[in-house]
Amino acid sequence: MSDAPRDIDHLIELMAKLPGLGPRSARRAVLHLIKKRGLLLNPLADAMHAVAVSARECLNCGNIGTSDLCEICQSEKRANGEICVVEDVADLWAMERSQVFKGRYHVLGGTLSALDAVGPEDLRIPKLVDRVISEEVKEVILALNATIDGQTTAHYLAEQFEGSDVQVTSLAQGVPIGGELDYLDDGTISAALKARKSV
Amino acid sequence: MSDAPRDIDHLIELMAKLPGLGPRSARRAVLHLIKKRGLLLNPLADAMHAVAVSARECLNCGNIGTSDLCEICQSEKRANGEICVVEDVADLWAMERSQVFKGRYHVLGGTLSALDAVGPEDLRIPKLVDRVISEEVKEVILALNATIDGQTTAHYLAEQFEGSDVQVTSLAQGVPIGGELDYLDDGTISAALKARKSV
Ligand SMILES: [Zn+2]
Ligand SMILES: [Zn+2]
Repeated sequence: MSDAPRDIDHLIELMAKLPGLGPRSARRAVLHLIKKRGLLLNPLADAMHAVAVSARECLNCGNIGTSDLCEICQSEKRANGEICVVEDVADLWAMERSQVFKGRYHVLGGTLSALDAVGPEDLRIPKLVDRVISEEVKEVILALNATIDGQTTAHYLAEQFEGSDVQVTSLAQGVPIGGELDYLDDGTISAALKARKSV
Repeated sequence: MSDAPRDIDHLIELMAKLPGLGPRSARRAVLHLIKKRGLLLNPLADAMHAVAVSARECLNCGNIGTSDLCEICQSEKRANGEICVVEDVADLWAMERSQVFKGRYHVLGGTLSALDAVGPEDLRIPKLVDRVISEEVKEVILALNATIDGQTTAHYLAEQFEGSDVQVTSLAQGVPIGGELDYLDDGTISAALKARKSV
C-alpha cells in the first residue's frame, strides 16, 4: 500500500479508516507521527488506550462518559424539567459548547429513516418516553439536524407527546436548511435555543 | 474544548494535531473510534505503540525502516549506480508505488529555502555527496517537487556534481508546474521517470 515496513503499513491502513482521512492523508499523518514520536505518537497511543478502557455509553441518555451514568445525568442541577434531544454525541457536545442549555440530554443515535429502515425501536425513542415520565420532564427540546430525516423524526417525537402536559419545542431561528448542528458556531446555537418555538 | 470527559478531550486535542484534521474532524474521529473500540480504537493504539518502538530513520538514506539501514539500502540488488533524490519519505513511497525505479534513494528532508533559512547543511546534501563516491553512483535522478524551492534545490545539487563523471537528471515530462509528487498517479510518475533528461 505504501511500500513502508509492515508495522507502518498496518498503522496507515488503520488510520485510513478514520472519517475524513483517505489513504494519502493517512500516510502523511503517519509520517508526521513518526517524526513526532515522543511528542505525539506515544502520547496518542496512550490516550487511545486510556479512552478504550474508560469510555462508557451513558445507560440513561446515550452520552459518552466514564461511568454507566454520565456526569450530566448524575448532576441533580441538570434535572430542571428540560430534555434536549439530539441525534448524536457530537451534537450534544456542540450544544454544551454554546453553554446556554442547563437541562439534560437524550441522544437518539440517529434519525428515523424509511430508506435505511431505521424505526423508533432502533433509536432511543422508547427510553425517551420512559424518561419524560420518570424524570418529570416538562419540556422536550428537539435539537435535530435540519435535514428531511431530522424533521421526520421531530414530527414523530412531537406525536408521541400529543395530549400530554409535556411541551415539545424545537430549535428555531438560525439553523439553516440542510444544515448540520455540529457545523454551526456557538452563537447561532444560542440564538436558536433562545428563540425555540412549539412544534 | 468538546465538553467530553477529560480522557476523551485529551485524545481529541492530540488527534487535532495531525495534519489534515482540525478540531471538528478530530471530534468526529474520536467518536467514531469509541464506537469501534474493538475493531479500530484498540488496534490503532497497539499499532501506534508498535511503530513507536520499531520505526527507525535509515542512517544512509533517510528512509523510514525498522533498522539502522533500511531494506533498500541493505539490498545489493538496488545498488545499480542510480540514486533518486526526494524531498521526503512520502515522495519515496510514491516513487516505490510506481514500481519503475530500481536503484536507491536519498531523502533530503526538505528543500533549500532562503525564506525559511534552510541551507545545504540542514538537508542531507553532504551525505549525498559522500554516497555518490562511496556507492560508485553513475546517475543522480532528482525527483523533487516542481515548486520554486524544489527547483532551486535541483540547480544547487546539479552544481555539486559539475565537472564530475556523475550524470544528474531530473524527472521531466508529466510533473505539472507547482505540482507535488505525492499527489500524482503512478502512471504519471512512471512516464516522468522514463522521459528523464539531463539538468
Ligand atoms: Zn447521561
Ligand atoms: Zn536507506
